[in-house]
Amino acid sequence: MNTYHDCIPCFLQQTLHAARLVTRDEKIHEQVIRAVLKEAADMDLGLPPPAMGKRIYGIIRRVSGSADPYASIKKTYNQFALGLYPEFKAKVAGSSTPLETALRLAIAGNIIDFGVNSQIDPTRVYETINQALSQELAGNLNGFAQDVRSAQNILYLGDNAGEIVFDRLLIEHLPLEKITFAVRGAPVINDATLADAKAVGLTSLVRVIDNGSDAPGTLMDECSETFKHAFAQADLVIAKGQGNYESLSEVNHNIYFIFKVKCRVVAAHIGLEPGSLAVKKNTKAPA
Amino acid sequence: MNTYHDCIPCFLQQTLHAARLVTRDEKIHEQVIRAVLKEAADMDLGLPPPAMGKRIYGIIRRVSGSADPYASIKKTYNQFALGLYPEFKAKVAGSSTPLETALRLAIAGNIIDFGVNSQIDPTRVYETINQALSQELAGNLNGFAQDVRSAQNILYLGDNAGEIVFDRLLIEHLPLEKITFAVRGAPVINDATLADAKAVGLTSLVRVIDNGSDAPGTLMDECSETFKHAFAQADLVIAKGQGNYESLSEVNHNIYFIFKVKCRVVAAHIGLEPGSLAVKKNTKAPA
Repeated sequence: MNTYHDCIPCFLQQTLHAARLVTRDEKIHEQVIRAVLKEAADMDLGLPPPAMGKRIYGIIRRVSGSADPYASIKKTYNQFALGLYPEFKAKVAGSSTPLETALRLAIAGNIIDFGVNSQIDPTRVYETINQALSQELAGNLNGFAQDVRSAQNILYLGDNAGEIVFDRLLIEHLPLEKITFAVRGAPVINDATLADAKAVGLTSLVRVIDNGSDAPGTLMDECSETFKHAFAQADLVIAKGQGNYESLSEVNHNIYFIFKVKCRVVAAHIGLEPGSLAVKKNTKAPA
Repeated sequence: MNTYHDCIPCFLQQTLHAARLVTRDEKIHEQVIRAVLKEAADMDLGLPPPAMGKRIYGIIRRVSGSADPYASIKKTYNQFALGLYPEFKAKVAGSSTPLETALRLAIAGNIIDFGVNSQIDPTRVYETINQALSQELAGNLNGFAQDVRSAQNILYLGDNAGEIVFDRLLIEHLPLEKITFAVRGAPVINDATLADAKAVGLTSLVRVIDNGSDAPGTLMDECSETFKHAFAQADLVIAKGQGNYESLSEVNHNIYFIFKVKCRVVAAHIGLEPGSLAVKKNTKAPA
């Protein structure tokens, strides 16, 4: 999807939240805001929002001098989610519909997103995940289950640190030998990288690759050849999170987008209410 | 007060709302947004927010080619408020504390502000004004009444069209011969100009001047000599609305700020909750 005019005030809001998270120095906040305003004035609105996200967080890294400003947040949420893992693994195991329960949890875990929403804390995450067990799924659960059964080669695109523990719960109910799990190629916001996949035990469960890019989404043109090859080979892509939806919604491939709808722009684009648990097959998927 | 970092996403939000109010042409929206982003990148944060407001609405007028994009909104709200005038005039007359009741109504009328909040409609305005009759006033009502009694020369700075009908209700309970009412010098947002003061009958009630400026507030450096003289001569200034508060809060003069607190930044600055009906004497007022 394109970048909408409504995304622009939100970029500035995210910039301010992110700058404040990284440092208390108001001089740095101001430098970051001015640089983002300059960048935004000339941005290409034909590109998806993660293209601007990549630039914003690049500016934050450059101005703050920190290569990975969300490092401690990522660590905290990986550990927090690993702490919840036994409880929710038992819920999945005890469920009469384990795949659906695992899917709900994986989608709900998508709340751990410091891009759209910097107002999160462990209590809110825990509540959201519990709520998801009874909230209606918006989309085609049966289609998803069928496509998973018939696929030979599944590429699962992860989103955020912490959240990937809930992806692991879902992956444990998918055919492990067919799965490749992909993370970002470099730190951006609290998006998961190889270190996070390792920290939560995904690397010892399935093949894990990185996409070679530092965008908070999947901008195909910027991804590595290895990643592009894995994408082309996959007969099913499971794309987690809003950033992956925003950047892949127009890509002609068999993709299931699974995420928690977190803003009005994406809600309008996908045709669901904010807060929905989306399980949507790409409308551009080959017949 | 200075411009805060939190004002910046809000400027962009206001820009987008205003551009959409003025035209449906998305190409114009984009032009306006890009121009505002460029302007904001180099803005002087030491100036109060109305300095940026002036620039934003200047851009909107220039790009849209409309000298007064809010003309019909101003007319609508003048007429709407004039329609309510008899009802509320009777409420003031029937009140055991008419000055207080008129003051509440004047402050509540400040809800008709298309700058901070573009989500207003006549129903919401009517509800807000009725609510104000029982809502606690935040500030010093007795001090205000005393200062009005002892003043020889009162300058009343108006804010928005429509709202000035409620200012009229208050002014009718002040010593008319001592009052000068001031409006903006040129159209900006839905702020009242001379035409509005005339339309609601203020010009036949008291002396009315304009301030010579098109800022949505009172930037003294940009005001006319006539206005500056009137300001200097006044031993009491009644400044209506957030824009006047933002631009005059550091000015060393005997000023009462009366307005509905409409954003978190101003709320924090003045030390009141958003939604409060503020009656605050300038902390910089001479002893």
